[in-house]
Amino acid sequence: MELQSLQPLAQQLFADVRALTFDGVGVTRASYGEGENACAAYLDTFARKEGLEVATDRAGNFIYFDPADTRTTPAIWSGSHLDSVPQGGNYDGLAGVVAGLLVLIAAKRAGTTLPAPLKVIGFRGEESAWFGKAYMGSGALWGKLSSADLELQRRGDAISLRDAFKACGADVDAISRQEKLFNPADVLAYVELHIEQGPVMVAREIPVGVVSGIRGNVRHNKIECFGEAQHSGVVPRWLRKDAVFAVSDLIVRVDNHWRALLERGTDLVVTCGVVQTNPAEHSISRVPGYAHFSFEARSKSSDTLEAFYQLVQAEMNSIERERGVQFKADRRLLSEPAITDPHLCDLMAKACRDRGIAHERIPSGAGHDAALFANGGIPSAMVFVRNQNGSHNPYEAMELSDFMLGTQVMADTIAAITPRAASH
Amino acid sequence: MELQSLQPLAQQLFADVRALTFDGVGVTRASYGEGENACAAYLDTFARKEGLEVATDRAGNFIYFDPADTRTTPAIWSGSHLDSVPQGGNYDGLAGVVAGLLVLIAAKRAGTTLPAPLKVIGFRGEESAWFGKAYMGSGALWGKLSSADLELQRRGDAISLRDAFKACGADVDAISRQEKLFNPADVLAYVELHIEQGPVMVAREIPVGVVSGIRGNVRHNKIECFGEAQHSGVVPRWLRKDAVFAVSDLIVRVDNHWRALLERGTDLVVTCGVVQTNPAEHSISRVPGYAHFSFEARSKSSDTLEAFYQLVQAEMNSIERERGVQFKADRRLLSEPAITDPHLCDLMAKACRDRGIAHERIPSGAGHDAALFANGGIPSAMVFVRNQNGSHNPYEAMELSDFMLGTQVMADTIAAITPRAASH
Repeated sequence: MELQSLQPLAQQLFADVRALTFDGVGVTRASYGEGENACAAYLDTFARKEGLEVATDRAGNFIYFDPADTRTTPAIWSGSHLDSVPQGGNYDGLAGVVAGLLVLIAAKRAGTTLPAPLKVIGFRGEESAWFGKAYMGSGALWGKLSSADLELQRRGDAISLRDAFKACGADVDAISRQEKLFNPADVLAYVELHIEQGPVMVAREIPVGVVSGIRGNVRHNKIECFGEAQHSGVVPRWLRKDAVFAVSDLIVRVDNHWRALLERGTDLVVTCGVVQTNPAEHSISRVPGYAHFSFEARSKSSDTLEAFYQLVQAEMNSIERERGVQFKADRRLLSEPAITDPHLCDLMAKACRDRGIAHERIPSGAGHDAALFANGGIPSAMVFVRNQNGSHNPYEAMELSDFMLGTQVMADTIAAITPRAASH
Repeated sequence: MELQSLQPLAQQLFADVRALTFDGVGVTRASYGEGENACAAYLDTFARKEGLEVATDRAGNFIYFDPADTRTTPAIWSGSHLDSVPQGGNYDGLAGVVAGLLVLIAAKRAGTTLPAPLKVIGFRGEESAWFGKAYMGSGALWGKLSSADLELQRRGDAISLRDAFKACGADVDAISRQEKLFNPADVLAYVELHIEQGPVMVAREIPVGVVSGIRGNVRHNKIECFGEAQHSGVVPRWLRKDAVFAVSDLIVRVDNHWRALLERGTDLVVTCGVVQTNPAEHSISRVPGYAHFSFEARSKSSDTLEAFYQLVQAEMNSIERERGVQFKADRRLLSEPAITDPHLCDLMAKACRDRGIAHERIPSGAGHDAALFANGGIPSAMVFVRNQNGSHNPYEAMELSDFMLGTQVMADTIAAITPRAASH
């Protein structure tokens, strides 16, 4: 099954969806919101024109499939997500859905029977930028969202995740009961193509990567620091309860610990992406009595995540004593690290070798929907495609030729999967 | 001249103005804006009911005077400002205007001739919270505002200071030419009553303070830090250009230098009251590529301000090299420290002693309009009134009885000033 001839189709598709969701700087596809819906509507028309069908699952995600394939044996799932961060890039997420669609179209056009039915998934709500939680679409499918998650509010319009699910026809009652919304035994394997979001593949000149594992993370969307607002000119240093000094102190301590752990070879990434004093009351001439910030640590190791988290707690306690402030954290969010399926990874590497494509096994620093399938016991794998300038910014720059190589490797991998007779 | 009988009048006045400008939390009297105007309109009616006249000067400030006093000899000026910070307290500024009015009313009612005509000034625009610059009303009067100052925009509605001046009938052309809008030779002395904004007088149980000097400050409203936004999971620490780590690092270094200088006995206060990532693009899962913050250092010594400022510059350069970011500061704003007039301070201390009022000479940590008069060569002095909970917050708690003591001391001081024959 050769996909090269579909490159113009892919090019058109990327260009059209970009234009539909362009925000003046990058693309904006809010989870369960405008840009995501626009993208889904476009793909719906596109898929049907190719003779495919489109369904939605009980979590509101999109399933693209060939209605001519009537087998009821366990299916291969392939896909990624439709949403983007605000002012994000065009390929993070979308590339994986397009790749799945191209495999489906190539098979249909060529009359190729794949080893198992192929279902391409367009997940909603993967990016944490909107509701402060990642993997909402795949998480709902796996029964992993809590009632508290459903009360999270979307940045910008404060719509709750519950209402967002309702609006797209999801089974909110089942989601809040944490029911699995599908039968994992119906899934033979999960394969996802995604752009690499870091600089490694560009540096090593590898167009395709075989993902060996996926970092997990521990997060707080909002840790608040309460001090005492006062006139800035008149409170001596030892009487201050300055929230900005306290938060800065904590962030610098976190950074120092991070550096020390890296020197010991620990896998760890730490980010405080949001820091804010309160615009309603802050001023240049007022000791800041309040500030809040976000916290995220990522690692391939659950133990590292937990140990680092405890260290940060201890530093907060120490700063509270030293600086007369109080920290108050919102709910702790945890995404477990995941390991991809060795057999699928081998098939993927073989596909690269057979076609003479330079490749390496590399870990994924970022989280992906695939992690939930891997941790749910479904053999899962990911293909990475080289991409300049990282992701979560408007400057993503995947080459279309690299994308076609990655899609071809995924198609070859899917074609080499051993089918299973029926659901167990 | 006894003022005690005016206490109910003062009480009513404070209560009425508070109610007029209450924002649900504290009082909000925007410079050249709604709350300031409401306060001025109330005082206008109040003053005229007492037989006083109200004029505005060429900078839009209010002048309350007794039309029966037709002397043209140099006048004693007394007053303070009408504006407040957002969600501020009722007394910061207003107390000084009310005190001046009470002296004027007491003299008029008693038929007392003061040693020189008394002009009570209600300054507009003293608080830096609105336009990022302090002493706009008194600064305009002294020809100290630059054209750049006139382009500053008010928080909330982005109205320029130029337009704000126009709207209240000020002579914007003269202000932008940096002309003095009054003749300093017409001012015999400047006396201002103000609440103490720090905790010293409460701690020492002194109702009245004689201000020995006023701290100056050096400020940047906005120092921006430019890094590089990237997906948080995938960029190793040594490739990051993280604006939040950089800004936190700078703030902690500034705090450490401050502590070290305090240990050497240096007079210094440092505040970063505003810290913000960019809400349009920040997210928990994105390395922050941008943050901005405000910077303020205060000291009684010009040399200390300059030396500390240079130290902060050096640290910014060092962090730029170490963390791959760039700092970009807006215009540097400087308010010179000021020394109050020793003879006026002696008169004030004598007034306290004569009435058996516990008092001390204390420096003012905060800046005041009086600093411009002192630095302009006009004998100037300030009375501080004890006040709980500091200022620039809704919890200011001056006792009315303390206020009446302070106002009495100011009245006695004014009555003891030696007049001068005519303008020179």
